[in-house]
Amino acid sequence: MTQARGYAAHDAQSALVPFQFERREPGPHDVRIDILYCGICHSDLHQARNHWSNSLYPMVPGHEIVGRVAAVGAHVKKFKVGDLAGVGCMVDSCRHCAACDADLEQYCAEGATWTYNSTERDSAQLTFGGYSDHIVVEERFVVSVPENLDLKAVAPLLCAGITTYSPLRHVNVQSGQKVGVIGLGGLGHMGVKFAKAMGAHVVMITTSPEKGKDAKRLGADEILVSRDPVAMAQHAGSFDFLLDTIPVGHDVNPYLGLLKLDGKMGLVGALTPLEPIVGGNLIFGRKSLFGSGIGGMVETQEMLDFCGKHNIVSDVEVIDMRNVNQAYERMEKNDVRYRFVIDMATL
Amino acid sequence: MTQARGYAAHDAQSALVPFQFERREPGPHDVRIDILYCGICHSDLHQARNHWSNSLYPMVPGHEIVGRVAAVGAHVKKFKVGDLAGVGCMVDSCRHCAACDADLEQYCAEGATWTYNSTERDSAQLTFGGYSDHIVVEERFVVSVPENLDLKAVAPLLCAGITTYSPLRHVNVQSGQKVGVIGLGGLGHMGVKFAKAMGAHVVMITTSPEKGKDAKRLGADEILVSRDPVAMAQHAGSFDFLLDTIPVGHDVNPYLGLLKLDGKMGLVGALTPLEPIVGGNLIFGRKSLFGSGIGGMVETQEMLDFCGKHNIVSDVEVIDMRNVNQAYERMEKNDVRYRFVIDMATL
Repeated sequence: MTQARGYAAHDAQSALVPFQFERREPGPHDVRIDILYCGICHSDLHQARNHWSNSLYPMVPGHEIVGRVAAVGAHVKKFKVGDLAGVGCMVDSCRHCAACDADLEQYCAEGATWTYNSTERDSAQLTFGGYSDHIVVEERFVVSVPENLDLKAVAPLLCAGITTYSPLRHVNVQSGQKVGVIGLGGLGHMGVKFAKAMGAHVVMITTSPEKGKDAKRLGADEILVSRDPVAMAQHAGSFDFLLDTIPVGHDVNPYLGLLKLDGKMGLVGALTPLEPIVGGNLIFGRKSLFGSGIGGMVETQEMLDFCGKHNIVSDVEVIDMRNVNQAYERMEKNDVRYRFVIDMATL
Repeated sequence: MTQARGYAAHDAQSALVPFQFERREPGPHDVRIDILYCGICHSDLHQARNHWSNSLYPMVPGHEIVGRVAAVGAHVKKFKVGDLAGVGCMVDSCRHCAACDADLEQYCAEGATWTYNSTERDSAQLTFGGYSDHIVVEERFVVSVPENLDLKAVAPLLCAGITTYSPLRHVNVQSGQKVGVIGLGGLGHMGVKFAKAMGAHVVMITTSPEKGKDAKRLGADEILVSRDPVAMAQHAGSFDFLLDTIPVGHDVNPYLGLLKLDGKMGLVGALTPLEPIVGGNLIFGRKSLFGSGIGGMVETQEMLDFCGKHNIVSDVEVIDMRNVNQAYERMEKNDVRYRFVIDMATL
């Protein structure tokens, strides 16, 4: 075992504090990464504070991890010491179910092993995330990071990036299609960038007109203020696909009205109950609502390669490790454009 | 104009009574059908009683129509006098929108002209449905009925049949797939027959264990009682597709739990609000919920041909025209297995 340093939550109420713990030595298939940056996902806050009633403490959050490979096991093929590498939401899965066989480890029938707030498959040992100096992960769950990107702004791609990239690919977004991105936050701002890079006509759909200017800077072709009934009526029945990044329960019915025949809406943010859906809003126009969670490891690599090719990164605000609790407070007020990233050199 | 006889509702409260009205003479592209049988759809009752607040009176209900061609216009190509023919829920559409061009006239951007409780496209003339001695319809909206089927039991195929056939085809149900049909009524009993004929392993999902025996007679391989939590848990994550025929708002969350990775659930019965859907139930497993309404005319013909090939008809109880009001009362108590059909010779 190796001594590791990080920040941890010890219960739902208290602030995160410095924490010392142990990581395993790299096994034959493991990669040890010295962490350079770790993004702060909204789910870090939810889990640190036990909002989902499933928190395991002590908890070292963080699943948007980038760094340099510091050591590799004897059988590791994809990485060598010094490579840039990333780790996202998962560090293991059963590897033999239909989902794992289909490279969709996030839907592992036995449950994926999450990067934190989870236990190792072979023990009751808690997993500890990226708010730490290093991490040891089996190579299947480590991705290569293109060298041409701004590294600090790459970190959020490991969760916010793949969460929005995967459903856009799942519905096969094509050049010339009209795609709406609902909600402009950590997820939504990535959705705009990806949909634009895939060639779509991108409409940022938001409750806040003041977000419009920023959305255009990110690549949106149009802004649609969802509180404006006239504008909503003008766009009725015109969208091929809607990416819904709203992180809490909400009313999807007005958005379903924006879809054209056979239009699809992908839900990626809201895990909790939605307002009642009117059946006729799906039936008239054969519309569909589906859910999508992060992405498998092969697709996560594909997403990073896409980002390298199209020079896509997140918009980030870099903070020192000791300011993580203030960052959480600001996130609760939506006061971040669009993702906090911890500079791990400040640990 | 030609004099026609039928039964009509004159307001939301009163019983249906005999009614005389006029039909147009067949135009160059029209087919006149002498009606032999007309099925009673649950939506007939909803509309006769103005449950959807959109009823136009006087109303001659009925959109599950079969009969013999009695006259054809000069340019009619598909039909000749004496042919068996059927009419379903639509008698016209704009014919130039994307939906119509894709043979999905039911989703016509300008709104289809419904067989009753609608107005003709070129006038404010009400359309009158199949509880009548004859009907005149443009040939695009008339289908050929295979001669080998029991005609009285064909009538419900024009609505209940296509409503269930279309979503099963839309998701491309294959031999060996596991398909669940939720709700055993006019729609559900057709769903079981079609899914079985398509080669699926069919599970009838019902709240009523006593319906089990009948479901097996209809072709179900298994019965799953949705109120039995142990049985529901045994089937969790195992279905490729669920056809949800429940005609009122309900909780789809327990059913979403039955779907496997990438499983789909097709909603065909409930036009009204569903209970709140938990976002995570879609996100974990990339599941989708879509709606589907009847089917286009090309697919309706395909469905009837499929029925002719596989000898599929509805299970019906034939009634005299004068007993239509009693039939409505029994439908309200779900006392029909599984569709009333009016013998129009009794008009």
